[in-house]
Amino acid sequence: MTTTVGVIGGGQLARMMIPASVNLGLDYRVLAESADSSASLAATMVGDYADVETVLAFAADCDVITFDHEHVPAPVLNALLAAGVAVHPGPHALEFAQDKLRMRERLAELGIPVPGWTRASSETDVADFLSEYGGRAVAKTPRGGYDGKGVRVIHAAADIADWLGDLERGESILLEEFVEFRRELAQMIARRPSGETALWPVVETVQANGVCSEVIAPAPHSQGKIADMAGDIATTIANGLDVTGVMAVELFETTDDRILVNELAMRPHNSGHWSMDGSTTSQFEQHLRAVLDLPLGGTGTLADWTVMVNILGGPSNGDMLSPYPHAMAAHPTVKFHSYGKAPRPGRKVGHVNVAGDDLDEVVYQARGAASFFQD
Amino acid sequence: MTTTVGVIGGGQLARMMIPASVNLGLDYRVLAESADSSASLAATMVGDYADVETVLAFAADCDVITFDHEHVPAPVLNALLAAGVAVHPGPHALEFAQDKLRMRERLAELGIPVPGWTRASSETDVADFLSEYGGRAVAKTPRGGYDGKGVRVIHAAADIADWLGDLERGESILLEEFVEFRRELAQMIARRPSGETALWPVVETVQANGVCSEVIAPAPHSQGKIADMAGDIATTIANGLDVTGVMAVELFETTDDRILVNELAMRPHNSGHWSMDGSTTSQFEQHLRAVLDLPLGGTGTLADWTVMVNILGGPSNGDMLSPYPHAMAAHPTVKFHSYGKAPRPGRKVGHVNVAGDDLDEVVYQARGAASFFQD
Repeated sequence: MTTTVGVIGGGQLARMMIPASVNLGLDYRVLAESADSSASLAATMVGDYADVETVLAFAADCDVITFDHEHVPAPVLNALLAAGVAVHPGPHALEFAQDKLRMRERLAELGIPVPGWTRASSETDVADFLSEYGGRAVAKTPRGGYDGKGVRVIHAAADIADWLGDLERGESILLEEFVEFRRELAQMIARRPSGETALWPVVETVQANGVCSEVIAPAPHSQGKIADMAGDIATTIANGLDVTGVMAVELFETTDDRILVNELAMRPHNSGHWSMDGSTTSQFEQHLRAVLDLPLGGTGTLADWTVMVNILGGPSNGDMLSPYPHAMAAHPTVKFHSYGKAPRPGRKVGHVNVAGDDLDEVVYQARGAASFFQD
Repeated sequence: MTTTVGVIGGGQLARMMIPASVNLGLDYRVLAESADSSASLAATMVGDYADVETVLAFAADCDVITFDHEHVPAPVLNALLAAGVAVHPGPHALEFAQDKLRMRERLAELGIPVPGWTRASSETDVADFLSEYGGRAVAKTPRGGYDGKGVRVIHAAADIADWLGDLERGESILLEEFVEFRRELAQMIARRPSGETALWPVVETVQANGVCSEVIAPAPHSQGKIADMAGDIATTIANGLDVTGVMAVELFETTDDRILVNELAMRPHNSGHWSMDGSTTSQFEQHLRAVLDLPLGGTGTLADWTVMVNILGGPSNGDMLSPYPHAMAAHPTVKFHSYGKAPRPGRKVGHVNVAGDDLDEVVYQARGAASFFQD
């Protein structure tokens, strides 16, 4: 059977697939950006993922190619397909993850609820949208944004004068309604090429400065209507866009009880890290099973609650592991995940997970353990 | 802090420490016997563990040395200590794991309950012991046995004439009382150099042809007296022998309600594989924490029951992964662990774990999934 999986990109997502690949006994290989990548243990090649020859050489011995990130250019992806390599998710799906405007168009076609939006390529476009939506909007560059980068809350066209000035002919900025949300949710789904899908429970995500800081699984008070809506949305998108592998659908739960899609990620995602210690099948194992078109694993929870807290920045002494003696002594039930990265302000360098049956206790343990890494 | 762990031996135990080392962010290195070892992903050197120069070179950059097996000769271990390398467990503990006669003597000194035993170096010694114990005994070579090898049930000295004939001056065979046991149990314990210990629940182990085939965690009807006795025995041994890292104590539960020690293993052990998917802290993570003298993780269970079933031999087509499509489809809650070894009759090539709250169901799922690999 198909057993050699090649991952393009050597970040923490590629790293966290290593344990699953070891357990399953897969031949797991990574094309990393640098020799000291987060996934260096499994890196069989270091090179540029935007270079067709490099990627074709890497893929030559792989049964399937998948991704640590969504930035591989379409011509490279198409060259892989032309060479007969299985690519999951495929370029026809990834294009929507790579371009927020294309994604909004496609979601509209699928009838998926999204915030009001438009394409803006001039100051007049911006002014018109702002006047329609109460003088406030969220502007996003269609490509390349992540973790709050390429996103601005605006009140006037002048707030994105630089972006508008840099537009090439035919390009646009995405403008979105500023949604009054009660909270943010995320729905993780896995889908095989042959069509099987599996949903984890919808989770609550907490952001700080545009970056995910905490995830509670499942989202409190989400059973029933909210879980159904989130699951239906993710399933419709996964099927409609022919997504393969794992996908994260970031959602707003609005103050008027709607669920709107905010962003998509066609790969394992920060909002699914809890599954490593809180679900029968982690998002990393599930992604590997899905891209290999293997039957998906159970997505049930191992405890009533699992909480993930990101470690942002890391210890100021530069040693990610230096807090272990005290953090582990104080928090014996906490699971620590270090990404093998040098600490740097604001950088995601690890996370902790805690599972248990008392949400207050689980949150307390997770925040307490993470705080040792943030001096 | 200390973060580079070197493991001598590239078998499946070294392999199964890889996921834990990735999660914790450790620098994890293996000295493997061959280039295609089970732990090859983390192998930084291939060489002979009985060669002092090889082992010293491997250990040069390691903060601590630990083991995949107990066969490293004492002179090699002592050379590591002389070179200032931290070795866990240390040679003063490992000598008891390496020599069953030395172990029986030491356990007797510690007051640990063991089957009746003696040293036999002549036919007369054997005949005397057999007459004392009803004409039946278990003979064991003091060194090198595993998985039923080096163990025979005997009724006469003639049954081990070959072993007796091969004895050098001063050497003996271990003879043990043939214990009428109700079932076999195992108690896993972890101990740090600084003295902290942690016990997992005592488990029931089922053997077939001298090899572990199934483990039920916790052992049914073990709460209270049995768990207390097993835990006390393991703690007394770990402290008394200054064991560091993880230790397995294999036990007999006799038909007259005693708990007797059968064997010890000073390393992660087959009877602890269930912890990978059934406990807050797996034996492999705990072993790494213990040998690094980090605080031990919680040993609570994630479900009422976890069952492990070994995959012995593997598929006759030689492809360990070929059963995945059907096995995963039929058993979505089962966790598969492949050791990256070529299938061969009788060889331990993997195992499955299942956790859940209904023991009958968990056993059914685990045996069902494992059966796909044993055609």
